[in-house]
Amino acid sequence: MRKSIGPKTIVYPTPVWVVGTYGKDDTPNAATVAWGGICCSSPPCVAIAMRAATYTHGNIMERKAFTVNVPSETHAREVDYFGMATGAKENKFGRSRLTPVDSEVVDAPYVEEAGVILECRLRHTLDLGLHTLFVGEIMDVKADEALLDDKGRPDVTKVRPLMADPGNWGYYGLGPYLGQAFSIGKQLR
Amino acid sequence: MRKSIGPKTIVYPTPVWVVGTYGKDDTPNAATVAWGGICCSSPPCVAIAMRAATYTHGNIMERKAFTVNVPSETHAREVDYFGMATGAKENKFGRSRLTPVDSEVVDAPYVEEAGVILECRLRHTLDLGLHTLFVGEIMDVKADEALLDDKGRPDVTKVRPLMADPGNWGYYGLGPYLGQAFSIGKQLR
Repeated sequence: MRKSIGPKTIVYPTPVWVVGTYGKDDTPNAATVAWGGICCSSPPCVAIAMRAATYTHGNIMERKAFTVNVPSETHAREVDYFGMATGAKENKFGRSRLTPVDSEVVDAPYVEEAGVILECRLRHTLDLGLHTLFVGEIMDVKADEALLDDKGRPDVTKVRPLMADPGNWGYYGLGPYLGQAFSIGKQLR
Repeated sequence: MRKSIGPKTIVYPTPVWVVGTYGKDDTPNAATVAWGGICCSSPPCVAIAMRAATYTHGNIMERKAFTVNVPSETHAREVDYFGMATGAKENKFGRSRLTPVDSEVVDAPYVEEAGVILECRLRHTLDLGLHTLFVGEIMDVKADEALLDDKGRPDVTKVRPLMADPGNWGYYGLGPYLGQAFSIGKQLR
């Protein structure tokens, strides 16, 4: 039996990413988002959505840049803190003991401890209501060398990304490998 | 040691969603996407990105509607097929043996077997390059009653959503629960 649960933002998975920006005084700031996703292959772009009231929203409008940092399971506590506190009132990097690093590619800091980071230049801004969608062109991806596989790509089983359940706001880890895309469905063709 | 791997669409997790649309002859079509995410809380909106060359792109432009269907681990094969074949040449629902259902809310079909479905009305279209971003307002969410928890919300551990690794194109399942958002980070405040 199928039941209507109303117009809600309930879907799975949603990402758990830390967005790095500079504040007005050049202080590095980190904010956690679950609203976002890749939105173009060429040029490679990623979208994140922020409320206009947030510190990060102003920072992105000002600097036209942000980083998307993929935290690992081991940083769930810090990530959750980044999603609750505001950079307008506290130095979140300082309190978390995670380390901001100045990007050499875009005008934004990234998180040293994140396994994979995307350095993004703002390309489009779209006001949707409570949230503004920021589309960033991915200028470079950086990964911790220890997490790369033999093809030089990040091994997701070593990255151990977080994901969110926006219905009940739980954090979850990566589950079992289920098969190869563009392959396991071939028998149906 | 941190290594640059170039401007690529590598980030985790990405969703694995099936997009339901009608073709010109009213045939229900299903296409799999990994580029997308929630993009606004109010009004509730979800974004998906499609190449202009795809059948689904034309369908959304024509009908101004689509559904986002969250498949479960058990449908990985069908989902992979939906991502490889094109509705311009084959009846994908027919071949997959999954069942299209006419939405009563928007001008698009949904997948009967999907645990959670979002019925969306097209609100914004943004050409980004190879992909076009479609922002849909979520008019309703429907869930299989058997998957709901005691609060009437889908239980993600019963939905068993898929996620993709866009670096190596593997499908993965949901992993362990790691903690509650807006809670586990409180001790850092």
